[in-house]
Amino acid sequence: MNVGFIGLGIMGRPMSKNLLKAGHEVVVFGRKQHIVDELIAVGARSAASPREVAEQVEVVITMLPNSPEVKEVVLGENGIIAGAKAGSVVIDMSSISPLVSREISEELLQRGVEMLDAPVSGGESKAIDGTLSVMVGGKNEVFEKYYDLLKAMAASVVRTGEIGAGNVTKLANQVIIALYIAGMSEAMVLATKVGVDPELVYKAIKGGLAGSPALDAKVPQMLDRKFNPGFRIKLMSKDLSNALDTAHGIGASLPLTASVMEMMQALKVGGLGDLDHAALVRYYEMLAQVEVKRSLHPDPTK
Amino acid sequence: MNVGFIGLGIMGRPMSKNLLKAGHEVVVFGRKQHIVDELIAVGARSAASPREVAEQVEVVITMLPNSPEVKEVVLGENGIIAGAKAGSVVIDMSSISPLVSREISEELLQRGVEMLDAPVSGGESKAIDGTLSVMVGGKNEVFEKYYDLLKAMAASVVRTGEIGAGNVTKLANQVIIALYIAGMSEAMVLATKVGVDPELVYKAIKGGLAGSPALDAKVPQMLDRKFNPGFRIKLMSKDLSNALDTAHGIGASLPLTASVMEMMQALKVGGLGDLDHAALVRYYEMLAQVEVKRSLHPDPTK
Repeated sequence: MNVGFIGLGIMGRPMSKNLLKAGHEVVVFGRKQHIVDELIAVGARSAASPREVAEQVEVVITMLPNSPEVKEVVLGENGIIAGAKAGSVVIDMSSISPLVSREISEELLQRGVEMLDAPVSGGESKAIDGTLSVMVGGKNEVFEKYYDLLKAMAASVVRTGEIGAGNVTKLANQVIIALYIAGMSEAMVLATKVGVDPELVYKAIKGGLAGSPALDAKVPQMLDRKFNPGFRIKLMSKDLSNALDTAHGIGASLPLTASVMEMMQALKVGGLGDLDHAALVRYYEMLAQVEVKRSLHPDPTK
Repeated sequence: MNVGFIGLGIMGRPMSKNLLKAGHEVVVFGRKQHIVDELIAVGARSAASPREVAEQVEVVITMLPNSPEVKEVVLGENGIIAGAKAGSVVIDMSSISPLVSREISEELLQRGVEMLDAPVSGGESKAIDGTLSVMVGGKNEVFEKYYDLLKAMAASVVRTGEIGAGNVTKLANQVIIALYIAGMSEAMVLATKVGVDPELVYKAIKGGLAGSPALDAKVPQMLDRKFNPGFRIKLMSKDLSNALDTAHGIGASLPLTASVMEMMQALKVGGLGDLDHAALVRYYEMLAQVEVKRSLHPDPTK
């Protein structure tokens, strides 16, 4: 298939490589020439603008930081819309506001261009392995036509509804994870501050209703003080902000998501935005003047 | 072993029966004569007050609603402290404030009486089956001496530290679960209000980092509108209130726990306190004027 790929960052670079490996012809556009060159070396062609990408392919994938970048690349001057033929398709795999997905899709439809929103979960390592989870919104016939294309980058590709539904699903996922991590943070800081070994608390509760793979991933990160990402505070902050914009746009209110977003924001402006989102615990630690860590009691049987 | 058991409610009644089954001699005290009679019929003796229970046994177990009741039964007039011999032990299995556990323990120690705080997780069915999880605080030698006694009521008995540590562990567990359920509620209401089928969102995310046995238990309860307990809103509200009192007493702040506690409180005063804690979603639904449920889209492939 003739595929365009715009946005060659941490995620887009390995994703476009997986499309090449699967035998697709890929036309790339990105800001960093050395990454474009790297992709040309493994079989891609390059184009000088999103418009020129769109002129050469039947489907253009975008993988960009946030809503404004997607709007600019799709609808802006020399954007995809200026080059896309009627009947072609845009698949936006960025994590953006679902309301913006809907807006962009409406503009594209007026030119006869279809759109899927298809954000992913899973970080750089899953992008490299081609084992991302893709959550898709858009027309079912378009979804079915491009299912195999998406599957070349992913372990799972699930459609949850019409355009925007992919991003709604992603935001719902992020809201749950963020509040779960907030719960872990409040619980571990409470135990530590009151003088109970947080590691023993973790061991005592992990088999019960509080337990999960996320608990087993995130609490040990807190105990070991290992906050290398994983998924960065600044990206979670962006996703939660999109969740809030979406909620407010349709008449819902997410008060706890708003609180966690502000905490993430505080960590980001404090210089911790590149740490893993498990570092939310740092927000609480600073206020409680305590540090969650292993072996407060050197002998845990005492 | 000669054991006293005080508090014969939904939990205490089956727990004391399991002690009898394990061959212990049990002296009970409870407010409801018909339950006392039921236990006498299966081999218990009864006493006229907590003091009289304590006079007859080496260890007294209490299973009561909250901190004030435990204080009254242990330290009040005709309380355990008035009858307990030096060298005997109180095991409080109620879920109460860990700071109150410490206070009570100090009073008891002045009379030479040891104490464990040993709250449980798992509801009535696990109390009946003898498969509760017990989280224990107190001296290790006391814990070891009464481990088998506790095991007669439980699948797991774990010590996490000195007196109060059992309740700290329980509260940490409740904080995590409460915020996780709050995340599920905000996510599902967001999806529903924006017009995306919450069931498809659930299916798309359950295999990822947001997933767990708790997600698989609580989100289907929301989708099916089945809020029979399980674990009641009013009990979670009490536990979160104890978590906050504990945090404030030792100089920590749990802002999101406080918010969820207030939401649970609002549901409780609104007459929903006896629903399962998954009914937290009702708080959000009322404000967003929407109802999370299955099959907003009759054909989920459309």
